Amino acid sequence: MGTPRSTDAPPQSGAPTRLGPVQLVGIDGDDTLWRCQDLFDAAVQELGQLLAGSAEPAAVADALHERETENLSLFGYGAKGFTLSAIETVLEVGARAVDGTVVRAVLGIGRRLIEHPVEVLPGADDALAAIARTHPVVLVTKGDLVDQERKLAESGLGRHLAHVEIVSEKSTGTYSDLLRTLGCPPEEFLMVGNSERSDVEPVLEIGGWAVHVPYRTTWRRELVEAPSVSHPRRRAAPTLADVPALIAPLSTRGPERP
Amino acid sequence: MGTPRSTDAPPQSGAPTRLGPVQLVGIDGDDTLWRCQDLFDAAVQELGQLLAGSAEPAAVADALHERETENLSLFGYGAKGFTLSAIETVLEVGARAVDGTVVRAVLGIGRRLIEHPVEVLPGADDALAAIARTHPVVLVTKGDLVDQERKLAESGLGRHLAHVEIVSEKSTGTYSDLLRTLGCPPEEFLMVGNSERSDVEPVLEIGGWAVHVPYRTTWRRELVEAPSVSHPRRRAAPTLADVPALIAPLSTRGPERP
Repeated sequence: MGTPRSTDAPPQSGAPTRLGPVQLVGIDGDDTLWRCQDLFDAAVQELGQLLAGSAEPAAVADALHERETENLSLFGYGAKGFTLSAIETVLEVGARAVDGTVVRAVLGIGRRLIEHPVEVLPGADDALAAIARTHPVVLVTKGDLVDQERKLAESGLGRHLAHVEIVSEKSTGTYSDLLRTLGCPPEEFLMVGNSERSDVEPVLEIGGWAVHVPYRTTWRRELVEAPSVSHPRRRAAPTLADVPALIAPLSTRGPERP
Repeated sequence: MGTPRSTDAPPQSGAPTRLGPVQLVGIDGDDTLWRCQDLFDAAVQELGQLLAGSAEPAAVADALHERETENLSLFGYGAKGFTLSAIETVLEVGARAVDGTVVRAVLGIGRRLIEHPVEVLPGADDALAAIARTHPVVLVTKGDLVDQERKLAESGLGRHLAHVEIVSEKSTGTYSDLLRTLGCPPEEFLMVGNSERSDVEPVLEIGGWAVHVPYRTTWRRELVEAPSVSHPRRRAAPTLADVPALIAPLSTRGPERP
């Protein structure tokens, strides 16, 4: 079997373009390689319980989400910003009842989030190892630097990676800058991840390829109204274990030899 | 005049090695290109005033420094970690008096730190422009991603930079990884910055060159007991304005043409 070739002809509507040769694969961290959103969801629940005397859990979750969204440009993603937004939420929702004990409890929720042992998702290690046998793989993950570095170190997955890029936001600009630094044309880059907004859409937009691997829960902010599921350079895989077979034939180095 | 050549001969003790051709210049951000430590010092003072009823300002500063040092591996550098450590300090020092008003005040101190307009240091723009005329320049700065990106954007200095690298810690490993990514041998890299610990020592250790430019105040953590001032690949410049003349002749592209 030959390696599929890329083509300059515009894709025909409805007919997915064959994946062209890919020289570099990007992969997301949170909820693609290791658990993340569950832990934040649990922390939001804990905050709701802490403020149960002042408000309904759903109202606490809404207030927190509003704080986080407002603070995003200042704090960025990650557990430290979450903790600061949670403290603001406590001051807002539980105003009268706020004392040292409550604040200490919120700091504890945040700290457990930061210190939580990393849980690599089932099959992620094998899948990543398989991808890395045919393509250099770069981790593209967003959030706090220290937080993401700790997760990566604890995950033990670093040995499969050619490069690690921790970014504040996964925008078209971020991906373009990264690919320029790594010397990879966008059309030879393929990104794998669970977020339509962060892993799929910006990569398609700059001319790259994307494979969406769903996770059972998605942060509100990452949800998009109408994912471009019919985009010719977009693929979907039920699990990360299905990804290596999808992209192995696309190596610019040619197919893997046994 | 010819461009100085690098030499494989070991440097003679006491006689500084001539700077070899440099293909890439790194430059630090905080307190090299823009003000930083002053603002943190002022924030520590504010925290002292806030807790004046519970402890002496010096004791508050010590307690905060201890918290920050303990939390460094979890929080990293930057204003968010500072704010969280400050809240912990308030709980520790002002335990009984902690209420919503105090916590709100601490959040305010942290937020002003994060939102403070960036003040480019006098002469930094011209000096950076001059360096960039003879060498590609990479900003190597540590701290929160979002925080550092905001400072860079507000500074307007990005137009002089070939690359930006925001790191959690400036270690020998960080510099080695960066130079590998950028394809620059360590012996052809020169770093400019105000911190002996972060900008000078690790770069000398991996075989690069460093120019120390002092700032009027240095964070306790960045102080080193005995800077290697006599290292053959280390230079000192009184101000950033003195750096271009020092490194202009070292371009691998040859000396600047008028």
